[in-house]
Amino acid sequence: MHHPENDPQYAGLAVNKGIVQPPSINPYLKKKQRKAYTPSEYIENILKGNITLLSQAVTLIESSKYEHQQIAQEIIEKCLPYSGNSQRIGITGVPGAGKSTSIDAFGMHLIHDKNRKLAVLAIDPSSERTKGSILGDKTRMEELSREPNAFIRPSPSAGSLGGVARKTRETIILCEAAGFDTIFVETVGVGQSETAVHSMVDFFLLIQLAGTGDELQGIKRGIMEMADGIIVNKADGSNVDKAKLAATQFKNALHLFPMPDSEWLPKVLTYSGYYKIGIPEIWQMVDEYFSFVKANGYFDFKRNNQAKYWMYESINEQLKSNFYQNENIEKALKIKEQQVLNSEISSFVAAKQMLDLYFGGTR
Amino acid sequence: MHHPENDPQYAGLAVNKGIVQPPSINPYLKKKQRKAYTPSEYIENILKGNITLLSQAVTLIESSKYEHQQIAQEIIEKCLPYSGNSQRIGITGVPGAGKSTSIDAFGMHLIHDKNRKLAVLAIDPSSERTKGSILGDKTRMEELSREPNAFIRPSPSAGSLGGVARKTRETIILCEAAGFDTIFVETVGVGQSETAVHSMVDFFLLIQLAGTGDELQGIKRGIMEMADGIIVNKADGSNVDKAKLAATQFKNALHLFPMPDSEWLPKVLTYSGYYKIGIPEIWQMVDEYFSFVKANGYFDFKRNNQAKYWMYESINEQLKSNFYQNENIEKALKIKEQQVLNSEISSFVAAKQMLDLYFGGTR
Repeated sequence: MHHPENDPQYAGLAVNKGIVQPPSINPYLKKKQRKAYTPSEYIENILKGNITLLSQAVTLIESSKYEHQQIAQEIIEKCLPYSGNSQRIGITGVPGAGKSTSIDAFGMHLIHDKNRKLAVLAIDPSSERTKGSILGDKTRMEELSREPNAFIRPSPSAGSLGGVARKTRETIILCEAAGFDTIFVETVGVGQSETAVHSMVDFFLLIQLAGTGDELQGIKRGIMEMADGIIVNKADGSNVDKAKLAATQFKNALHLFPMPDSEWLPKVLTYSGYYKIGIPEIWQMVDEYFSFVKANGYFDFKRNNQAKYWMYESINEQLKSNFYQNENIEKALKIKEQQVLNSEISSFVAAKQMLDLYFGGTR
Repeated sequence: MHHPENDPQYAGLAVNKGIVQPPSINPYLKKKQRKAYTPSEYIENILKGNITLLSQAVTLIESSKYEHQQIAQEIIEKCLPYSGNSQRIGITGVPGAGKSTSIDAFGMHLIHDKNRKLAVLAIDPSSERTKGSILGDKTRMEELSREPNAFIRPSPSAGSLGGVARKTRETIILCEAAGFDTIFVETVGVGQSETAVHSMVDFFLLIQLAGTGDELQGIKRGIMEMADGIIVNKADGSNVDKAKLAATQFKNALHLFPMPDSEWLPKVLTYSGYYKIGIPEIWQMVDEYFSFVKANGYFDFKRNNQAKYWMYESINEQLKSNFYQNENIEKALKIKEQQVLNSEISSFVAAKQMLDLYFGGTR
């Protein structure tokens, strides 16, 4: 039988009664004797709002180790019935738009002025490469990271956007079960991460900056159409007029798109994250959105569609990885690709030949 | 052995020496004794520019019958080395934008003023439902349909967008082998057809109308970002100013998007398809585009990526249909979906259970 104690993978982890537990990553906790927790203890304490155990459970989710995954899955399934009761807000913006400062200001407003409990999560697929996340760095959200009613996590690493997205969705379930009524999922706009975030949140908030007039704003394709709200930052001091002008340009551009399925016309506001101007108005708009879509049924419709989407997304991803990670397939694919590029065979014949190879010609 | 003559599916088709041939659908052809052609005869005559045999070969491509498909595939593979030498232009626009009239005018200009040979194809996934295509109706492109140097086909029916897209791409190969140097692929904007068209053309042309000011233009999400050129129609008479204003709005909106990979800044022009105003300027712009992207290497880059894209697209579609059309899977999926919607199991666990069912737990 496999003995975890002897496995170098488990170095640094306490093993007690066969239950492998992760090290605590909360820097504000005093180092104390590590206790082993059963899944039931995790669940019970998460439902009571215990941040320490919530944090450890999220670390289990993020772990790639089989034993951790087993425990994590049990916790998730048991917490699932207690999830769902929050506003899930996606936040994106170009680097330099002031996301961290803004989230800091948003969080302090929501916690102190509106009595909310806020979890800030992040999707940053680049983090597995750099081993350091661009986002969710606690030290950049100074005030918020000291709040008991705030829970901040950096992006999980998972080797793929699909893996990162899954773990984030599972973390949302635990946070909601722990009583967090507001969830931020922020992303820095690498690759397809905005699409992933958009499909797990209720409201998608786009942070913009005023440009210099005619310049390209650097908005990635399709992002503007995802936004339920666009907020132009740095509307302070001498920059106020430029910010308002940019807001007008965005309003005009939004008019060129068709009405979204939600029937909510996306709103554009200006604010200053650094000087804390215009913050309550943003969250008033968000509350208006939720009232609106809960009244017209779109809120439930979207949540249901997202749940189904992630099931099909997982299935389709697994079907593909089963194919593409097959050794024989990998080799043959390179050859076929070159034949297609040389116009030796058509794309479709190449595909058919690959599939015959995979299914063994028995389809 | 299966005897085609007795199969009611083949009623109306001449069967000669085992070669089933399709009825001629060209209404301008005199009814003559149907000749049986071998694949080699098809290929030889297509390469000589014989429109009759090109047309019959395209009908074979569109047919769902196995024997037709076999012949079609051989013709396509042999014509493939002779393909590629054309400008492939995708054309889309909302219903009522004046596509047919515009294509008529474009075609007459290209054929008579620029000595081109034009094939007009269409992707209209709705055609298999209505059994009548919204697009590509020859009688709506009156002048063009009488031109010897024009070849017009309605959209194929194929039961799915993927099938329609594939047949259209295969038809492009034959048209190019037959000497057509300009290919239009038009679409009416149903579902994802614009994305399909965009991934098989070099230049994507969006036909727009002037709105009434602040109204939503009804542009589908993501379409504007696909366009290499936007042309505002009905810039005639008292509508000229409104058209120019709309063009300015579109120019401003385009500035909010990042530079496309082609490094070509999309252009906006006004014109009148009905009164034939501004037509040469549009095709001058298109020629400028082609000079530009052939010079900077993007033309080849895009064509190569598209060829690879269609191979992977075909593979992925087949992997999925193999799964989803499996009887056991179909039944189980409905149950799993409901469990997910009831929050009984998470999306990911549901997916895992479905995949275990499919692969028999041997992954």
